[in-house]
Amino acid sequence: MYTLYGNSISGNCWKPAFMLRQRGLPFRWVEIDILGGASRTPEFLAKNPNGRVPLLQAPDGRLLAESNAMLLHLGEGTPWLPADAWQRAKVYEWLFFEQYSHEPYVATVRFWVAFMRKGEEWRDKIAEAMVKGYAALGVMERQLAQTPFLVGAEPTLADVALYAYTHVAHEGGFSLREYPALRAWLGRFAALPGFAAMPCTA
Amino acid sequence: MYTLYGNSISGNCWKPAFMLRQRGLPFRWVEIDILGGASRTPEFLAKNPNGRVPLLQAPDGRLLAESNAMLLHLGEGTPWLPADAWQRAKVYEWLFFEQYSHEPYVATVRFWVAFMRKGEEWRDKIAEAMVKGYAALGVMERQLAQTPFLVGAEPTLADVALYAYTHVAHEGGFSLREYPALRAWLGRFAALPGFAAMPCTA
Repeated sequence: MYTLYGNSISGNCWKPAFMLRQRGLPFRWVEIDILGGASRTPEFLAKNPNGRVPLLQAPDGRLLAESNAMLLHLGEGTPWLPADAWQRAKVYEWLFFEQYSHEPYVATVRFWVAFMRKGEEWRDKIAEAMVKGYAALGVMERQLAQTPFLVGAEPTLADVALYAYTHVAHEGGFSLREYPALRAWLGRFAALPGFAAMPCTA
Repeated sequence: MYTLYGNSISGNCWKPAFMLRQRGLPFRWVEIDILGGASRTPEFLAKNPNGRVPLLQAPDGRLLAESNAMLLHLGEGTPWLPADAWQRAKVYEWLFFEQYSHEPYVATVRFWVAFMRKGEEWRDKIAEAMVKGYAALGVMERQLAQTPFLVGAEPTLADVALYAYTHVAHEGGFSLREYPALRAWLGRFAALPGFAAMPCTA
């Protein structure tokens, strides 16, 4: 059986949980208290030297970090990672976009505001990050005004990765009022067979 | 023929140039003056709404952003992306590690120091980013003390992605003195057949 080390409030941790469920692979969830420093203990660093969750342990004991690497690994050979090489390339593009241009702003602001309760204290820093977060949401809106899912007519790993923090962006104070295509896409994604929302415990 | 929109000082742009050469695919290089705002013009944003280089245009005109997505697209079916599913998963892991935990610190500090000339003015911000940059180099060192390349005995896309900014980290003020395995790896990578250093113009 797989083991998923994660934190229930984390969209990054929701991603592999979603794909394990889609694949029908049973898994054990191990809650890691990030705020309490549990991802930086010597014991955890021996598992993931980068000190982050999620961390996926395969049935044979081998360990894999990076949520989007887990998506690709679990999605290979399924319709979530298209057989067409160019479509697959576009999935890759969105996965890296998510980690570089979306997550560091949309997820981080949510973490600061909703979990660290720094909304007032870090007002300027948050405002600055929100500009970049809205820019990322704008890139998504532009695509979703043209296609039902990010890479075309069907959902892919790109949608899984971007759904993770977009659907809880409001918890950081983001408003999707001016992003109608994005709101419609959130609804389409949540209506997919086997959909399960956060928290992501097994 | 492929077209690669890039900037000569960018390690991210060097990555697809390296892989195009490895694949023997001729390409046209279009220099984009990032500091001059050329990646944010309406004309460029029509090509890449995220306003970044590199941007790869396939012979049929289709466009692909995100340097590591280009690596995966160009590396599929070659030894640079292993046929073994778990080895491939580890390549994915390093590619996301690079964009999330390495590039935002190692590349960004180099850009601030060597190109924006903010070494003095942004001293505190740079010191803070360098701590995270060294942490990322430490994660690499730990692996490279065990295996000649990041995913094992042979070079993969993981090495291409991480070589990009690690080999110019000193331009941002990083010292690799305490990273002997990493220094040996830099040498091994540069000795690979077909290696070409930055700048990456065609």
